[in-house]
Amino acid sequence: MKNSLGAKTIVPTTPVWAVGTYNRDGKPNVMTAAWGGICCSKPPCLYVSLRKATLTYSNIVERKVFTVSIPSENYTKEADYFGVTSGKTVDKFSITGLTPVKSDLVDAPYVKEFPLIIECKVIQIVEIGLHTEFIGEILDVKADSDVLNEKNLPNIEKVKPIIWNPAGMTYHKIGKSTGQAFSIGKEL
Amino acid sequence: MKNSLGAKTIVPTTPVWAVGTYNRDGKPNVMTAAWGGICCSKPPCLYVSLRKATLTYSNIVERKVFTVSIPSENYTKEADYFGVTSGKTVDKFSITGLTPVKSDLVDAPYVKEFPLIIECKVIQIVEIGLHTEFIGEILDVKADSDVLNEKNLPNIEKVKPIIWNPAGMTYHKIGKSTGQAFSIGKEL
Repeated sequence: MKNSLGAKTIVPTTPVWAVGTYNRDGKPNVMTAAWGGICCSKPPCLYVSLRKATLTYSNIVERKVFTVSIPSENYTKEADYFGVTSGKTVDKFSITGLTPVKSDLVDAPYVKEFPLIIECKVIQIVEIGLHTEFIGEILDVKADSDVLNEKNLPNIEKVKPIIWNPAGMTYHKIGKSTGQAFSIGKEL
Repeated sequence: MKNSLGAKTIVPTTPVWAVGTYNRDGKPNVMTAAWGGICCSKPPCLYVSLRKATLTYSNIVERKVFTVSIPSENYTKEADYFGVTSGKTVDKFSITGLTPVKSDLVDAPYVKEFPLIIECKVIQIVEIGLHTEFIGEILDVKADSDVLNEKNLPNIEKVKPIIWNPAGMTYHKIGKSTGQAFSIGKEL
């Protein structure tokens, strides 16, 4: 018998994504979003869901592009800062000392110090309720050399991403592997 | 200077969600999805993106409801099995020995042995490309007593969810906390 907890957005793992955009005046901004994920394999797409009140919302509506920068665990503090403050009142790059780099594919900046970044072009905007979902086609994924494995793919143990846990309001490291996908299940 | 890896769906962390539905004949089915996430706070919503070829796709189109059951790390094998096989050819509950329970809120089954489940009613269907996104309003979240904390919320250290890493094709445990959200960033 399971206990009813009510209609809440409490799943244990959500991503911690720093969404990069330019303000109307060209100043780089970044905001952490946890309502995000991959939503299509072909074309490769991800989404971020944002409240209309955010500057990032307005920036994406204006330029129809954004980047996602994935922080390593040692940037938990900066990622949290990107989520609790607004670019309307502070310069988040300046306060954190992190570096905005203009994407060469989309008119949006990414966070240089974060090891993995994704450049997206908005292909659909879905109104849901408090949040609007921006579906972005992934134009490229870029990573630092030191987080890549021999197949030229990001090694999760080197990227050291974090997840957010809405129920506990905590960020967490990724732990040991519990199995290989499309493989361990075949034992059954 | 970051290395270009191409337009790929490789973010380090995606959820591992067992999506429960009934087949046309009323038989319970379950499929693991990694293309999923929270997409709105009010109404509380999550989505799963599915290929039209899956039985779960047809089942959701038919009944417009689904559940999400979140496996603990000790069910990695079963979760993988739910993702690599099709309910068109096998009875996934029977093979894994796991138990379908009919939700009392939606016409869909959940996995009894998984500690946290979410009951959803489809409110939007978004065609993207290979995948179709089903946006479900969260009607309730239910959890086993032994994974709840003193605030009656799921404790991630007891739920022990796993994440999937598309680039390495590996499942991973969740590790230690790296900080409290809406708090650690204020140090900056």
